Amino acid sequence: MLRRVRKLQIAVIGYNKDRCTDIASNAAYEVGREIARASAVLICGGLGGVMESACRGAKENGGITIGIIPQEEFSYANQHCDVVVCTGIGYARDFIVASSADGIIAVGGGVGTLIEMGVAYMTKKTIVAMAGSGGVADMYGGKFLDERYLVPITIAKDAKTAVQVILAANKSVKSQSGA
Amino acid sequence: MLRRVRKLQIAVIGYNKDRCTDIASNAAYEVGREIARASAVLICGGLGGVMESACRGAKENGGITIGIIPQEEFSYANQHCDVVVCTGIGYARDFIVASSADGIIAVGGGVGTLIEMGVAYMTKKTIVAMAGSGGVADMYGGKFLDERYLVPITIAKDAKTAVQVILAANKSVKSQSGA
Amino acid sequence: MLRRVRKLQIAVIGYNKDRCTDIASNAAYEVGREIARASAVLICGGLGGVMESACRGAKENGGITIGIIPQEEFSYANQHCDVVVCTGIGYARDFIVASSADGIIAVGGGVGTLIEMGVAYMTKKTIVAMAGSGGVADMYGGKFLDERYLVPITIAKDAKTAVQVILAANKSVKSQSGA
Amino acid sequence: MLRRVRKLQIAVIGYNKDRCTDIASNAAYEVGREIARASAVLICGGLGGVMESACRGAKENGGITIGIIPQEEFSYANQHCDVVVCTGIGYARDFIVASSADGIIAVGGGVGTLIEMGVAYMTKKTIVAMAGSGGVADMYGGKFLDERYLVPITIAKDAKTAVQVILAANKSVKSQSGA
Repeated sequence: MLRRVRKLQIAVIGYNKDRCTDIASNAAYEVGREIARASAVLICGGLGGVMESACRGAKENGGITIGIIPQEEFSYANQHCDVVVCTGIGYARDFIVASSADGIIAVGGGVGTLIEMGVAYMTKKTIVAMAGSGGVADMYGGKFLDERYLVPITIAKDAKTAVQVILAANKSVKSQSGA
Repeated sequence: MLRRVRKLQIAVIGYNKDRCTDIASNAAYEVGREIARASAVLICGGLGGVMESACRGAKENGGITIGIIPQEEFSYANQHCDVVVCTGIGYARDFIVASSADGIIAVGGGVGTLIEMGVAYMTKKTIVAMAGSGGVADMYGGKFLDERYLVPITIAKDAKTAVQVILAANKSVKSQSGA
Repeated sequence: MLRRVRKLQIAVIGYNKDRCTDIASNAAYEVGREIARASAVLICGGLGGVMESACRGAKENGGITIGIIPQEEFSYANQHCDVVVCTGIGYARDFIVASSADGIIAVGGGVGTLIEMGVAYMTKKTIVAMAGSGGVADMYGGKFLDERYLVPITIAKDAKTAVQVILAANKSVKSQSGA
Repeated sequence: MLRRVRKLQIAVIGYNKDRCTDIASNAAYEVGREIARASAVLICGGLGGVMESACRGAKENGGITIGIIPQEEFSYANQHCDVVVCTGIGYARDFIVASSADGIIAVGGGVGTLIEMGVAYMTKKTIVAMAGSGGVADMYGGKFLDERYLVPITIAKDAKTAVQVILAANKSVKSQSGA
């Protein structure tokens, strides 16, 4: 019997290294931890800031981390990525991060994070913004990105809730402990 | 003496065929016409709706039109593109449309248009939204896309003004009649 | 002390479903198995034919498999991918498959496989062709792709040797059982 | 009656600045000139070497030149491009150059040129190699790139013949003086 091995893939997006605050870094760590506890795979842009903190949170809790980086050399990825996908396509890799997720969680972030939310919105994926994490997560949390009202950007009070929102929306993609 | 032949490149972005209104279509036509009159090159996503109306406006006024399409076959482009760039990279081509512009003008539009504004914002290009054209042009016109306040989305009352805003911001890239 | 968790990433490229032979499919399965036994991560294009057989070989031997697909929806991937990267950029994803590998192994294949070998060649990665697997693996095995003689396409008689060639060339990227 | 304005688009590919010979540069200039004389649009990778010489040949003979560059800033393009498409996707832009051509002409070149020929081959476009121009043009001229024998790489003795081969294969895409 054919049986898919793929686990649920959750993307964490947000501030890069330059602008990451302690609040956002801590929130990202907790989101990474909760993704690991839910036996989902953490997808991210593979660089510093929120991406690195989330990867660390996942790795320190037995999770799996995938970094999809803009560059074509492995060395740009943070040290907590299990697998590095070197796209070489620059910031257009934002499309790939969002397309490769069953749901995404924003922690702070600038316009690059907004673009990733936009790609997820376009394909009606579940988008969660961490309350109080700053940046576009707080700017756009609770809103719709265009007049079509396709999917709301759901505000989550804590990391566990954020992950639960995505799990609930993706019950058909089972998270499998045996994969 | 080395002398660049490149003219100013202005992107027109907005509603695709499915959601384009008469108001947006007319505004796009006028923007295309004004780009042609300014001897600039019109860059767009090459498909229907705002893209097609803008190309028609430029072509009926002696302009040059470039369509940068998601597909890898020419046949998807609208009939008013002088040159078709077949990217084959899907909607990630939004990055290329915005990167290939000295400034961009939004006419209505959904989240794809927001993404293109986001890419332009990230690289601090001049972004103009046509007043009253609907969609994200009206939703985000007059605002900044993130907390860094990099560049405002300037609201323009008419097509001529929209093009003038971009010309004024790019005086170093001369529009050359002899190119 | 900072310590990288990333394991060695080996790409398997070759015939897609339409043209895959039994010989190539079996060879791909064995290559997948040997990658798993070496505790490396299998990278591939995520679709059918050689990609699917290699993933199956890895999964049935405790390995980890990453499918980097041209499409933006998960459903196109074969059922043996642990993680699916939905690029949405069409066949330009060949660049990403090759860039995301520490070394690549070709099993048969048409011009798409040649393109992936070309990308790996450009960045001087180790390229191995499975002897007798048909297609471009046999056409270009033992040769250099251009007049610069950057890296040879090494011919391997069996799957174990193919993987050993890549392990030997990447001793600095340790394969870590504890990751 | 709907009437397409698009002219025939011919790509010139080959050596970049680092490895370009005088022979290849002269051949590229002549190819650019003949493309202009045929009222076709010259498509290229927009950088130096063969790309620059071909653009110069076209511009000095009244042609139109499009440079599709890997970078996201205009300044990397050579000075003879009428329009610059800033892809920002690195060398994956080779796919776009080939996809955006009705036919391609190779003048010398390394593995990047081979990749572009591969993309054109995959979609059965007319591929011409300039005889005696060195590099992959001479290495693969007269051959098929894989065992499917999809399209041959036609050898041309001079620039005029090279362009004629592509014109003959694309009679349905009319080159229009009035566009």
